Amino acid sequence: MSENEEKIITHTLPGMMELLPSEQIEFDRMKGIIEETYRKYGFVPIDTPAIERAEVLDAKAGGETEKQIYKFNKGDTEMALRFDLTVPLARYVAEHENDLVFPFRRYHIGKSYRGESPQKGRFREFYQCDIDIIGREKLGLSNDAEIIAAINDVFTALNIGAHKVRVSNRKLLAGLAEASGISDKTAEVSRVIDRLEKTGEAKVKEDLVAVGLSDAAIGDVMRFASVKGSAGEVISSLRGLGIDNPLFEQGVSELESLANDLGAYGVPESNFAIDCSIVRGLDYYTGTVYETILTDHPEFGSVCGGGRYENLVSKFSNRAFPGVGVSIGLTRLFSQLLSAGIVKPGAASTAKVLVVPITENMRAVLELGAYLRSQGIAVQIYTEEAKMDKKMSYADKLSIPFAVIVGDDEINEGKYALKDLGTGEQKKLSKEEIVKKIG
Amino acid sequence: MSENEEKIITHTLPGMMELLPSEQIEFDRMKGIIEETYRKYGFVPIDTPAIERAEVLDAKAGGETEKQIYKFNKGDTEMALRFDLTVPLARYVAEHENDLVFPFRRYHIGKSYRGESPQKGRFREFYQCDIDIIGREKLGLSNDAEIIAAINDVFTALNIGAHKVRVSNRKLLAGLAEASGISDKTAEVSRVIDRLEKTGEAKVKEDLVAVGLSDAAIGDVMRFASVKGSAGEVISSLRGLGIDNPLFEQGVSELESLANDLGAYGVPESNFAIDCSIVRGLDYYTGTVYETILTDHPEFGSVCGGGRYENLVSKFSNRAFPGVGVSIGLTRLFSQLLSAGIVKPGAASTAKVLVVPITENMRAVLELGAYLRSQGIAVQIYTEEAKMDKKMSYADKLSIPFAVIVGDDEINEGKYALKDLGTGEQKKLSKEEIVKKIG
Repeated sequence: MSENEEKIITHTLPGMMELLPSEQIEFDRMKGIIEETYRKYGFVPIDTPAIERAEVLDAKAGGETEKQIYKFNKGDTEMALRFDLTVPLARYVAEHENDLVFPFRRYHIGKSYRGESPQKGRFREFYQCDIDIIGREKLGLSNDAEIIAAINDVFTALNIGAHKVRVSNRKLLAGLAEASGISDKTAEVSRVIDRLEKTGEAKVKEDLVAVGLSDAAIGDVMRFASVKGSAGEVISSLRGLGIDNPLFEQGVSELESLANDLGAYGVPESNFAIDCSIVRGLDYYTGTVYETILTDHPEFGSVCGGGRYENLVSKFSNRAFPGVGVSIGLTRLFSQLLSAGIVKPGAASTAKVLVVPITENMRAVLELGAYLRSQGIAVQIYTEEAKMDKKMSYADKLSIPFAVIVGDDEINEGKYALKDLGTGEQKKLSKEEIVKKIG
Repeated sequence: MSENEEKIITHTLPGMMELLPSEQIEFDRMKGIIEETYRKYGFVPIDTPAIERAEVLDAKAGGETEKQIYKFNKGDTEMALRFDLTVPLARYVAEHENDLVFPFRRYHIGKSYRGESPQKGRFREFYQCDIDIIGREKLGLSNDAEIIAAINDVFTALNIGAHKVRVSNRKLLAGLAEASGISDKTAEVSRVIDRLEKTGEAKVKEDLVAVGLSDAAIGDVMRFASVKGSAGEVISSLRGLGIDNPLFEQGVSELESLANDLGAYGVPESNFAIDCSIVRGLDYYTGTVYETILTDHPEFGSVCGGGRYENLVSKFSNRAFPGVGVSIGLTRLFSQLLSAGIVKPGAASTAKVLVVPITENMRAVLELGAYLRSQGIAVQIYTEEAKMDKKMSYADKLSIPFAVIVGDDEINEGKYALKDLGTGEQKKLSKEEIVKKIG
């Protein structure tokens, strides 16, 4: 292709996050913390193909999501890119049931795809970092707290400011609806009270009238959704509502048990709250539901959500696999943290030291670099022909913390000039001393 | 969906690798070693979207590969899944040229996609682990050795048996072809001698006749392709061929310089060889070419290949970006290693210890688990209701190395029974002693 021919557009597609190295290193560091914490809780990795049979995804998607699925054909098979990591987990459990040990605790950190109309904070390719605990036929309630304990550890380790896990239980509203004779309207009522924080009490009441609730039912719902306080206070307030319904009572007991377990796990009370207005969009949740906010940045919205479901894999298996899990939307979170300046791009190199030759004796230079690497130090060797200035400014631009300058005198002496590029301090050291100093 | 309805097929699509947890942990361990080694060499991570504009990929693909690209539309945009990590690198460099520092050293570990007809060892979704060093306008020759040094470190650290990096230089055959007046047949001659090891000398001669070479030219080519020995021997033999051509001579000098640099890097002579029959398929290589074999498993074929190219991004930019790089096909390699029993699935848990309650006091159990985790130990807590047998066999099935048994006596005493599930040995220890023992 000649110089005058038109070159191809190189912009990434809209809605795709592509980072510069200094940002990518930071992203990978955060991803590493999440993975390490998940492993500390004994979750095992899985890594399913990003491409599934289209019918596998269609089975669970429905509505808006279904329209957003990227589909394509190759030969006879209709294929699609996964839109989350939950459906692939369901398929995985159904397929490998006999090779898995239950409760099955898996983490999955991978990319999902949705053809959304790109707008601020919405991505078409995005990382999700999921954990789920899946039982066969049954799964104990303590697992609901275990998930929060892990998430609390993750957000503490990420060191991006205070966080709060907000918890509710789907059985509360379902039970309340039964007691008030509005079970047929549970979904609509859920959607309305989900907006309580945003729209305020007056608007919610108005919307509940529009849904067709009686004054008495509206009173019940509003009293329920407005319960506030510490976990202990919320639980007694809920009991004090006088709602006589077994499902509601079960929901309260489950929340009480969850709060007790969180105490045992050492999750600080400031890091979680029971909030009855939490609903979560996905229909398959049946018990505990979570979302997590960064306390100082409520405008980020929920950075991590999940909950308990009665059966993960009903579309694929005749057996019941109850589970509980949570997902961190890392791509969106990272993009928000970067915009808000909470996370800052750092070095643009993984190297701790740049070896800078001012000699023709490249053999000695390469040997020194190889030695430092053999001692576990991340090293970059500047082998290009260039003036000294340019070599040092290379280290500077990449924010490599140290440079080792290697000239003929240094080689003969066996002592090299180690320069701290932060302080400008320079010392002559043997290769062993360099390792001791920066290793 | 009722129990009697037909369930959806849960098999992964053909040509997709999906691992069980015990295999996945091993895969991730290997991937981690590769990444860690790349970082030790100062390569920085990039992570481009798996979906590119179709025209970006079409620009480079051509031939068989082009037919294998997965394409799809959403609105007006034709999109495609990447088939390697090199084209995305070219696009990335062209797009971010002004924000990158050259030489730009990047690693990229990610999935690529090709709609190949699935057969043993061919995958439609596969991990590639790439490193490349990209210069702007120019790039020193030492970088060619740096890549081999990194690859040699990777395969040494992977501990999967002996390996050998086989090296040649495209300028040799191009120069020989010039000298023999067969420049128009270089590509065909390359393909023929690429098969020398497989098909033998007689067949290669026959094929060269078919290509239309004169007896004299065939003699030149065969003498060239059959050169064997240590790096030093090959270089003198090549010089002894009496081929009077500047390109050929440059190729020999580059190989000589490469061999010297590899010595300085401490790459053992047994781990590399100059082999003039190495060609590599991709047309864009212009100098050094590599491939790597596992010495004891030549049937695996090349597990890692790459080379030097004059210009990475000619389709996207008017500027020249010469580079050198290499790619490990990890999915295929892992699948081969698993089949050959060189890599074995290990534990199906990331946990070091299973906390096993034999008490109703779950608070004390969760507290102990949380304490051990706070000390950096990977812990799984068995919270399901089950008989003791079942709890211990859970640890066994997952190959968790230790169990801590927590009963009421243990809680009162502050000493817990730590059982080594390998040896069966059991000891009563305080929580601090447990950390000391297995932390």
